[in-house]
Order: sequence, then structure tokens, then C-alpha cells
Amino acid sequence: MSLLDKTVSSIVPPDPVAKAAARARLERLAMPFWSLGRLMDLAEELAAMTGSTRPPVERKTIVVMAGDHGVAADGVSAYPQEVTVQMVANFVAGGASINALARQAGARVVVVDMGVAGDLGALGGGVLARKVAPGTASIVRGPAMTREQALQAVEAGIEVARGLGPTTDIFGTGEMGIGNTTPSSALVAAVCGVKAAEVTGRGTGIGDEQLQHKVRMVERSLSVNKVDPGDGVGLLAKLGGFEIGGLAGLILGAAALRRPVVVDGFISTAAALVAQALCPLATDYLIAAHRSVERGHRVALEKLGKTPLLDMDLRLGEGTGAALAMNLVDAAVCILTEVATFEEASVSQRQS
Amino acid sequence: MSLLDKTVSSIVPPDPVAKAAARARLERLAMPFWSLGRLMDLAEELAAMTGSTRPPVERKTIVVMAGDHGVAADGVSAYPQEVTVQMVANFVAGGASINALARQAGARVVVVDMGVAGDLGALGGGVLARKVAPGTASIVRGPAMTREQALQAVEAGIEVARGLGPTTDIFGTGEMGIGNTTPSSALVAAVCGVKAAEVTGRGTGIGDEQLQHKVRMVERSLSVNKVDPGDGVGLLAKLGGFEIGGLAGLILGAAALRRPVVVDGFISTAAALVAQALCPLATDYLIAAHRSVERGHRVALEKLGKTPLLDMDLRLGEGTGAALAMNLVDAAVCILTEVATFEEASVSQRQS
Repeated sequence: MSLLDKTVSSIVPPDPVAKAAARARLERLAMPFWSLGRLMDLAEELAAMTGSTRPPVERKTIVVMAGDHGVAADGVSAYPQEVTVQMVANFVAGGASINALARQAGARVVVVDMGVAGDLGALGGGVLARKVAPGTASIVRGPAMTREQALQAVEAGIEVARGLGPTTDIFGTGEMGIGNTTPSSALVAAVCGVKAAEVTGRGTGIGDEQLQHKVRMVERSLSVNKVDPGDGVGLLAKLGGFEIGGLAGLILGAAALRRPVVVDGFISTAAALVAQALCPLATDYLIAAHRSVERGHRVALEKLGKTPLLDMDLRLGEGTGAALAMNLVDAAVCILTEVATFEEASVSQRQS
Repeated sequence: MSLLDKTVSSIVPPDPVAKAAARARLERLAMPFWSLGRLMDLAEELAAMTGSTRPPVERKTIVVMAGDHGVAADGVSAYPQEVTVQMVANFVAGGASINALARQAGARVVVVDMGVAGDLGALGGGVLARKVAPGTASIVRGPAMTREQALQAVEAGIEVARGLGPTTDIFGTGEMGIGNTTPSSALVAAVCGVKAAEVTGRGTGIGDEQLQHKVRMVERSLSVNKVDPGDGVGLLAKLGGFEIGGLAGLILGAAALRRPVVVDGFISTAAALVAQALCPLATDYLIAAHRSVERGHRVALEKLGKTPLLDMDLRLGEGTGAALAMNLVDAAVCILTEVATFEEASVSQRQS
């Protein structure tokens, strides 16, 4: 039995007993019924995921997976491919947005090389080396990777989750990879059965003409690669990226450990759709951090069945939205664990 | 010259130089242009408000003002008036939602009795005693308070801001007062020139029949009290509440000190509209925390010219939304002060 199969078979549904106990307490808190709205929904979900009415969320790890994409050479991005390596170095140096926002949220950042097209040796132990290959093949000419490589990427992600699990209460996803909105759009179009134009956006900020070109590239990737949306490994092999596969594995590994995963933006959500294809139950451990500017994100979140916590016109990735949402996770747990009930606070209940 | 007049005349526009300097740095950060969207807008605004490209926001104070309302006896709320005093005691004991969320956000909570209908002596120094009177008169039968009391409430709020200013970098607003969505709806209807039904909501959670009654009460308050939307003190005297006046004063006092104010929900926003009527410039120091379930909130925020940061179906008040938004304020400042530019991080810029 492969590590993937073993992991998928070990994912269990969230705990209905802890969920009911959390709900019972939240309903008795000294406030108008459920008047903290979605913060209380989140508290209830965290109890179900972790199987505890005191969900542990203190030790936060944002896993930023990096990979390069053959399609970057096909004119889909505003930035040159070398930026992937440069930004990985920036993550390790602590100067990137994700470093700042993770510090603010009390999270550590773990950077993983899943398939960057460059040598990261100079960064030493600052990066977990899980490189499957130095970049994917271009999805407009054939599959991104072999089926074996896809499985390798997912299992590497599972192993990252297992390695970090003992020191992590809650995960966040992040990514870096010039060109990676293109495979993400292709994945979302394939999984959701929608047209490329409906899920292809401006990524790092391309203009109208380049956007039209990018839509054509996504269309071509879908016609060149006939995909079966029910085959998670096949989806990833044909249209994916190594960091996307790694994040799908991270999600499965975390779900198997009953650790909540805060999913960042469009690329992370595409990875979550791959995880969903591999194991629908895994989505019960996901929290959608935000709705990004990237137009396919809404469709992808709907397919995942998640309502995002934030909507702040973000389109950076790196895990930045996940870091912001970690504060809301903490707040939700505070409501569940620190607020007095009507009885405890001697407050009169409603009269009408 | 009254304290109010002196305060209003000392409010200056935000600093365009600090704003431009912040923008220049934000535009050079190693990320696609403005790809953290509204977080970057917020960073720019904070620089303008505080006159600094390193906006101080560490020392956070959420001021929770409490008051009672004569209209509570007219069947507008699901809860008895005694809950105001009980919840103030809960704030002082640290068991309320605002205590939990303020702790999570690193903010202190200051509770002010602006006009509670009960003796808070047992709470000792836990509450700032600024009681104008033990509850307002019912707005469905005449003005809520005298013009002198309205001025007293606003000036008490200014003094609270001045007292806390030396130990506060950023304020948040909060309130408690059974029945206070009713005067807030009346204020918003009067200021925005819309029908009562469009801005009257379920408050603590009343049913359909009671909501219809509440709409009629708001309509009656508007026909009994002819208001001039340009007269801030008059507005407050006729339709307000003591805690609403105190919060309007707090906003003016904070703006005069160039301290940002995170405005919580519907009642806080009604107070901000009173502050806007007294000094339109004061709104430049306001940050709208969230859009609440209360239906008049959207209209009020539009009048204030603010887009809220969060939209999480909150309807509790107490300053809870302001506390949640404080994390986003911290995050915005982190982006401005901790993230490397393209040059600093040696990252290639866009090629197309």
C-alpha cells in the first residue's frame, strides 16, 4: 500500500461529539444568539476538526512550497522565471511579505523546494529539499510531469506534514512559482468543468493582451491533456505543478493527523481541489482564508464548498492570506474558551 | 470657546507627505504591484493619519462606552434593560467577548459609564464614571436628552480620548446599551435621509412582529423629533444616547491627537456619523472594522465614506469587530515596515 493510499484511508470525519459540545457552549455564551456569526461557525469547525472543545492552535506552521513551470516560457507571466529562486532566497532571509505576516500571526514559515529550476544549495538548511525535478514541462505541449512524479510530489507533501505534525497545531499553505496561476487555472477549469476564460486571471498583473494569450494557453493545455477530473494523480500529472502536488499532499497529511489547514489563495485552492479529488473527506479539515482577486478563485472555493474568511483584494500568494486568517482562528478559539456563559456571568437571558 | 469647539478646530487633515512616502515604499516592495490590496491601502492610510512611515499602533485601547435608553421600555429589544449593568460587570470581570478578543489582539479595554440606569459603585475603579444621567428619555416621546447633556456627553468622550492619548497609539470603539440599535437606526435614517425600514434591523435578535414594531418606533422618533442633520449636537440630543455621544467625542478627541480610531459596528458607526456632523475632517482618522448583519450599517458606512475590512456576520457590538480588525492594522504596518523592496531583496522586476 502506498503512502498516499495509507494516508487517504486514515483520514476520518471530524468529531461530531466535540462539535456538538462546542456548539452547546457557544449557544450559552452571554451574548445574543450566535451574534459573532462566522467567528462562531469557525470555532465550531475547529472543535470538530481537532476533536476538542479547546482546539489547540498555538503552534502555527505556514508551509511555503516552491516550484517552477515550463509554461512560464510561453509568455503567461509578467515576471521572469528567475524570480522563483530569488523569492525563495527572500523567504529564507525573512524579508518577504509572508515572513512579516507570519511573524505578526505568531506562525513559523517552512520553505520547501518541490521543483525550483535552479540551485538552492546556497540557502543551506533554510529550505527543505524535496525537489522532484527542476521545473515541470509546459502543459501546453503535454503533461506537466509523469504520473510517478505526481505521486512523488504528493507523497513528499504528506511527509512534510508528518514531519512537522509533532510541532504543529495548525497548518497554513503558501506557494511560490512564476507562472503557477496558469496550471491552477487549468486545474480549476478541468475539475469544475468551466471554460478557461472564466477561471483565468491576471496573476502577477498582466495586461489585457497577455491575458487573452494566457486564456489561449490554458485552453490549449486542456485540449492537449485530456483529463479525468476524478483521477487526482492524473490531474496533477497532466496540468499541475510540483508545489501544487506538494500542497495537495500536505493537506492530506495534515487531515490524517486531524490538523486544520488554512488554505491561502488561488494556487493553494487549486491544490486543495487536487486533494479533494484524492480524498473528498480531507476538505473537512480546510479553512479558506480569503477570496483573492484572481477570478477563478470564487469558482474553486465553491467546488471546495468553502466560504472564505477574508476578502481584501489580495493576489500575492506566499501564504499571506493564510497568515492573516490565523488571527481569526485564534480569535475563534478565544471565543470558545474564554467567554463566560449567561449563567457564569449572571446575565439575564432574553425576555421575548 | 468650548472644549468641543477647541477640539474640532484642532483637527487637521492627514499628512500627505507621510502618505506619499509610505506609498512610494509600498510600490517598491518585492511583490506584484499592490498585490496585498486593501492591506496596503490601510498601511498608506495609517501613515497619513499618524504622520509617520512607521505608524505606531502597538498600544491599543478599546473604549467601551455604556448607556441606557428610555426607548428600551417601548418594546424594541429582546433583552431587559438590566442586562446593560450586568454586561458592564462582565466587562470589568473580563468574561465578555470583548475581553477575549481584546486579549487576542493585544488591546486593553477601558469601560466608561456614560449613562447606565443603575449603580455601578460595586465595580469600583473598573469603570470610568462619566454618567450624564441614568438613561435617556424615550425618543418616541421627545428628545433623548437636553442639548446641554448632549454637549456634556461629547465633551466627556473628548476628555476620555485626551486622558488615554498619552498611553494609546490607536483606539477602538465599543458600546453596550440595551435598546441602542433603535436610536442608532433613527440617527442613520435622519443623517442619510432614508426611510426607517431601510435602516432598522433585528438588533439582539427580535422576531418579525417585534421588528415591525421597532420600525414604527423609529418612524415615530423621527416625526416627534424634527432634526437638522447638519446640527451634530442637536442630532445627538434628539435621537441619541449617552454612549453614542461619548463615542462621537472619543472620535473627535482621537482625531485631534492624530490617533487612528477603529470603528466597530452599527452603533459605533452611528456615533461616527454624529462626529462627522460635528467635524467632517474627523472621518479621515477612522477605520471601519466590519460590516455587520444590522441592515442599516451598510448605509451608514457609505455615508461615512468607508469600506469595512471584515464581513463576518457579526452583530454583537462591545467593540468585538474593532478588536478583530486590530490584527489587520498590525499586519498592514508590518507590510510597510518589515518587507524588503525589490532592490533590498535582489529580486528581478517585471519584464512585461
